[in-house]
Amino acid sequence: MVASAVILGLSVPEAANAQFTSSAAPSAPSQGSAVAFTMRPVDFSQVKVNDSFWSPILDRVANTTLDVCIDQCAVKTHRIDNFAIAAGLKEGKFEGIFFDDSDVYKMLEGIAYSLVNHPDKALEARADSIINFIAAAQHDDGYLNSYYTLVTPEKKWTDMDKHEMYCAGHMIEGAIAYYHATGKDKFLNTARRFADYLCLNFGKGKRNWVPGHEEIELALVKLYHETGEVKYLDLAETLIDRRGHGYGTWKKPEYYQDLVPVSELTEITGHAVRAMYLFSGMADVAVLRGRADYTQALDRVWNDVILRKMYLTGGIGSSSHNEGFTVPYDLPNKQAYAETCASIGMALWNSRMNRLHGDGKYFDVAERSIYNGTLSGISYTGDHFFYVNPLESAGDHHRQEWFGCACCPSNLDRFLPSVGGYAYAVSDNALWVNMYMGSSANVSVGGSDVGVKVETRYPWEGEVRLTLNPSKSREFEVRLRIPGWCRDWSYKTSGKISGSRVERGYLVLNGKWKKGDVVTLNMDMPVEVVEADPRVEADKGLRAIQRGPIVYCLEEIDNPGIASASLSSGTTFTAAYEPSFLGGATLITARGADGKELRFIPYFDWDNRTPGRMIVWVPWK
Amino acid sequence: MVASAVILGLSVPEAANAQFTSSAAPSAPSQGSAVAFTMRPVDFSQVKVNDSFWSPILDRVANTTLDVCIDQCAVKTHRIDNFAIAAGLKEGKFEGIFFDDSDVYKMLEGIAYSLVNHPDKALEARADSIINFIAAAQHDDGYLNSYYTLVTPEKKWTDMDKHEMYCAGHMIEGAIAYYHATGKDKFLNTARRFADYLCLNFGKGKRNWVPGHEEIELALVKLYHETGEVKYLDLAETLIDRRGHGYGTWKKPEYYQDLVPVSELTEITGHAVRAMYLFSGMADVAVLRGRADYTQALDRVWNDVILRKMYLTGGIGSSSHNEGFTVPYDLPNKQAYAETCASIGMALWNSRMNRLHGDGKYFDVAERSIYNGTLSGISYTGDHFFYVNPLESAGDHHRQEWFGCACCPSNLDRFLPSVGGYAYAVSDNALWVNMYMGSSANVSVGGSDVGVKVETRYPWEGEVRLTLNPSKSREFEVRLRIPGWCRDWSYKTSGKISGSRVERGYLVLNGKWKKGDVVTLNMDMPVEVVEADPRVEADKGLRAIQRGPIVYCLEEIDNPGIASASLSSGTTFTAAYEPSFLGGATLITARGADGKELRFIPYFDWDNRTPGRMIVWVPWK
Repeated sequence: MVASAVILGLSVPEAANAQFTSSAAPSAPSQGSAVAFTMRPVDFSQVKVNDSFWSPILDRVANTTLDVCIDQCAVKTHRIDNFAIAAGLKEGKFEGIFFDDSDVYKMLEGIAYSLVNHPDKALEARADSIINFIAAAQHDDGYLNSYYTLVTPEKKWTDMDKHEMYCAGHMIEGAIAYYHATGKDKFLNTARRFADYLCLNFGKGKRNWVPGHEEIELALVKLYHETGEVKYLDLAETLIDRRGHGYGTWKKPEYYQDLVPVSELTEITGHAVRAMYLFSGMADVAVLRGRADYTQALDRVWNDVILRKMYLTGGIGSSSHNEGFTVPYDLPNKQAYAETCASIGMALWNSRMNRLHGDGKYFDVAERSIYNGTLSGISYTGDHFFYVNPLESAGDHHRQEWFGCACCPSNLDRFLPSVGGYAYAVSDNALWVNMYMGSSANVSVGGSDVGVKVETRYPWEGEVRLTLNPSKSREFEVRLRIPGWCRDWSYKTSGKISGSRVERGYLVLNGKWKKGDVVTLNMDMPVEVVEADPRVEADKGLRAIQRGPIVYCLEEIDNPGIASASLSSGTTFTAAYEPSFLGGATLITARGADGKELRFIPYFDWDNRTPGRMIVWVPWK
Repeated sequence: MVASAVILGLSVPEAANAQFTSSAAPSAPSQGSAVAFTMRPVDFSQVKVNDSFWSPILDRVANTTLDVCIDQCAVKTHRIDNFAIAAGLKEGKFEGIFFDDSDVYKMLEGIAYSLVNHPDKALEARADSIINFIAAAQHDDGYLNSYYTLVTPEKKWTDMDKHEMYCAGHMIEGAIAYYHATGKDKFLNTARRFADYLCLNFGKGKRNWVPGHEEIELALVKLYHETGEVKYLDLAETLIDRRGHGYGTWKKPEYYQDLVPVSELTEITGHAVRAMYLFSGMADVAVLRGRADYTQALDRVWNDVILRKMYLTGGIGSSSHNEGFTVPYDLPNKQAYAETCASIGMALWNSRMNRLHGDGKYFDVAERSIYNGTLSGISYTGDHFFYVNPLESAGDHHRQEWFGCACCPSNLDRFLPSVGGYAYAVSDNALWVNMYMGSSANVSVGGSDVGVKVETRYPWEGEVRLTLNPSKSREFEVRLRIPGWCRDWSYKTSGKISGSRVERGYLVLNGKWKKGDVVTLNMDMPVEVVEADPRVEADKGLRAIQRGPIVYCLEEIDNPGIASASLSSGTTFTAAYEPSFLGGATLITARGADGKELRFIPYFDWDNRTPGRMIVWVPWK
């Protein structure tokens, strides 16, 4: 295994030429029209994850993280009590922050996802009892918010930045997940009543409310998919279209993505997580309603984010000041904010952009954010969390047990166990494999049932073995994502095909597939030396190391001389899997021309051992 | 046909991210070791070119350019007379420049290539008579140079910058080509006698001569391949190894690539064409002798050239001051030098780098230089030439009939008809298709004869139809280059295969091929909007247009408002083939949001109609 001159994700290093490194060629509007894709992700509830990378993580979330979260919500804080008190089932008063309900909803969503791979009757019973409190706290008209019910009931819907719709959105997401996991509809009915209330009061022609923290939009689209009720989709579209028309009551509308109508957006501004949730909702509506103006705007902001405002780790939002964006190419490493929730948001948004365009490049970004900026948010033990994910540390930045604003732990709690939902998608006559993880699923392609199994040691190795078990032999497309970092790959099939194609980042195989057919994809995974855009001041004269989707870093514990570490064109690299390293990881040894060695570990694994300095970007000499 | 957000040659636009546009990740030395490829290009003499793009060009070269060249060498100047006078067959004295012999040799090389696709008895007879003069001018000891023979015979081998070996190199190349085309060996024997003389006087342990203008090295390797005589390869290696040890007698050794030993080269310096010829010879020797130190040095300088010093057109050497290089990213458009010979040199060098590494990315560069920086050097009529190829003109830069220093016309004269030699290569058990042109060839793969035919409308369309006619059914690899600009492609075969792979820029198909088997490769060819590396001051705020391998430009004749032309994210693009445009070309119409249209023509076609302003890089608003 040697270092490669092949540059990150380029199939042609030539492309990174002095005169045409090229970076910002936004789509022409005519390309912006929504592609008539009918791609639907295969629901998490249909996917059993079973591999040596994800299974231990999912186990940890089920066995530790969820417990931590329940303990925090139910014991150490009063988040669940708030509902019981609002319902009049308990004495007391509201404690916490005005959006704390959302953490409970996200926790329930996480429990739901977890129950699929980890059935647990006791946990389910506990969730049922929490849901009982929630349902009981609902007002007769459908309204539900423990803070407003208990603290300032007279001020409902007076402050657009108080997250009432944000909480409603998380309620809807949690309720749908719980219904999928358990078949129980109490929570779903509660959420639906609140959604009906919102339609009645804030639909087209009703009150011009602008939700200060987006989330409700994507949740309403989920509810539309779940129920078939068009009014939910209508409301999502109305709320999105209402932005940028001066209805917002804030001083800095750009912070809320409320400065211009969304169809006029050209760049990402303000709070990173809010922007991600808005863009996710827009992508959903663009698919369903053919809103070319949304698609064009999303293509523009995607270029802005990806080309100018994203860290190598897939993290975004470099500034702690506004939890968001500053100017292009402002990507400091030690002061990076790169909130865990924003990386999760990148996965949510980019998986939807993939659905909108049928293009694997969006999953390249989602994958980058998941394996790096998101996974770094949780400790190896599953009980400590990063809110902020810098790319450099003097040794003083550590994961914490919990946060006053607990959005990140509860987001990890629901996101990580949902990861199986990113593995597969189907369209009219195609099976799409988007993220490679050992897993099995039952999907429906063109009306026929197909059993699907993936075996792989991804992200440590590039071999993926896909077994197909259609109920009867039938023709359909198998679409395997070829990640952008992958330059050399091969496939073999046990069946016979007479051609194939590469289309928007997918290897497309047409065949008449029969029970037991196997497709083996083999992706070369060399160590890559990465250079930043020269406009990024913070990375001048530095290089980073990536292998497959994994970004690496140096920690002081492995590299006592980290302060003087450097790489050069004379450095050679060796990658080797070490089973004993934090549950197993491929580590990279860099050997300089002088014989000195550096030991790189996956970025997401940092700060799990003796604290010390850490760098992702290393001086290049 | 619409503009694409896909950025030039990137399989993942994501890759051009703010934090990792990445450009200069030089190879680690361990990768520098020569790969044991046995890839050999299929000789031009085996390839019949027959398509609507190249055939008219080859016809023009045969019918016009060669005549111009012969007229210039034989009538308007005394280049051929110089030989006759030196031979004592004619009265008179030397006229011209000290390296003019080389133009005659290049002309003969061009005639040889041309005879394959355009048999012409009269032309062949004329070439024979010129060869008679040349052979007659050879000294008894093998020395041959009409300038030294006639002007300063006592000063032979006193000035390293007087091109005696450069002329010898071109003699060898011309002689081998003429032998391949006609089977006549008189010229080859003459060249060989001179080469024997050089071995005797300048081989290892003999005089430490450093040729001031490289060329002899690659020619000696050709002679080794032709004759099997190892001493020619030895001399090539010796001459290369002798550089950088202080033997050179010049004040600015960097101009001559003589500042450091070649194995220590890290960047390209000095005269562009000389550097190209040196690197070509090094690549040849690296393949044959496994010189890992050469390979590592070549990998380093390749990165330096491609990432920092190459124009979008594949032209290099931005400065007229030294016909060569200045500092990285110094790529002015109007003042660009980008000598035609240097673009030809890029094709020579990069096709050899391809042979060294078996990587298609080098052919991406060769193709860029051929279709743009090289083809621009000759007028549509075939009788006017650019020495200098700027990317912008105020309307005052035009092709000329000839030049005092005639290297460029005579180089075009030999390069263009040799283009069939770039189409195919073979290795032990594989057929490589490197440049797509309508053509047929008889090749030998693994000891068996295989008839090969390519039908295509490349570079205007991306469909390539390859027909295989092996003498008997046999298994071998078919390797089709997937150009770096191509993101979406598909193939079909009439045979059956059970898998394929993509390896270093090639689609590799394994099959048992039989007579009449067809592989159809279909490459999507969208219009691409290209941005330069931000370190290129000259291109700040500008964008260029490329489609397939063709770089486009705006000319005033089509765009009277060229002074205020601009592109934006609202621009849409339509590509259409226009048969009446200079023999047929795909032109691109760009329509702005305001409805205004721009008409882009291929860069190589500029200055063939009413003179006026021209720009490649267009303001982006």
